[in-house]
Amino acid sequence: MQQRYFEDFRAGDRFETPGTTLTEAQIVDFALTYDPQPFHRDKVAAENSLYGGLIASGFQTMALVFRLFMDTGVLAACNLGGTAGEMRWLRPVRPGDTLRVAVEVVSVEPSRSREDRGRIRFAYTGLNQDGEPVLTMTLDHIVARRRPETPDA
Amino acid sequence: MQQRYFEDFRAGDRFETPGTTLTEAQIVDFALTYDPQPFHRDKVAAENSLYGGLIASGFQTMALVFRLFMDTGVLAACNLGGTAGEMRWLRPVRPGDTLRVAVEVVSVEPSRSREDRGRIRFAYTGLNQDGEPVLTMTLDHIVARRRPETPDA
Repeated sequence: MQQRYFEDFRAGDRFETPGTTLTEAQIVDFALTYDPQPFHRDKVAAENSLYGGLIASGFQTMALVFRLFMDTGVLAACNLGGTAGEMRWLRPVRPGDTLRVAVEVVSVEPSRSREDRGRIRFAYTGLNQDGEPVLTMTLDHIVARRRPETPDA
Repeated sequence: MQQRYFEDFRAGDRFETPGTTLTEAQIVDFALTYDPQPFHRDKVAAENSLYGGLIASGFQTMALVFRLFMDTGVLAACNLGGTAGEMRWLRPVRPGDTLRVAVEVVSVEPSRSREDRGRIRFAYTGLNQDGEPVLTMTLDHIVARRRPETPDA
């Protein structure tokens, strides 16, 4: 498979990921380390909260949505890191929910100072098993151009 | 200690957290689950990357910065969840870095539809041991008002 680089992306390009199921154990485990609020880690407290049961930390949902896109390999060769982003949490993610991600290229800008890279803004939408959006997120990635000596160039 | 609620916050309020040290093991562990890019999980590849060594996933830094503020207890009684936010990753976070967080209240808006809550925007700045910002993040939190029957009201 030929790897993608900066010059292979166009605004409007779309990608979809397979799904993954987020378990109660994963939700509680993440919460204990990073977001130990009662509605993320304590089933009894969560049932008595406005959520009516455990929900995943929004930071876990973000990381999982990113991971699903990374797993597609679209950015495997070229991603040099993220610089900025924004997110909206739209619906709770509950134990047993199966998430998948739709990603769209929003913009593609060559770097003004570095010939070997550019900035690509990706819009991520995390969807649950009912097709409902749970998270939207845009991320600005620094993406490498294909090098002249790259074998598959 | 009296718990804080929506009506206790004012724009300009500032909070600071203690520090925490992020270890190589924590960086690699998070990467394996959520962000398995070479510069987050593979020391050899990371040394040959533009970062010159392992760096933490930006999602781990975000979650850790949030956790540090949660640990202060400022939002312990009143946080009903986050709705939206934005972030900028400013500097790499490396194994052994010690992070602390400065938080400022940006805005405080009563809900138009619900008497029992409002929205507070917090600006988080994650700082390393040299006082350099590594992450800025704003988050909109839904925050509960003190209920009339709350014992410490």
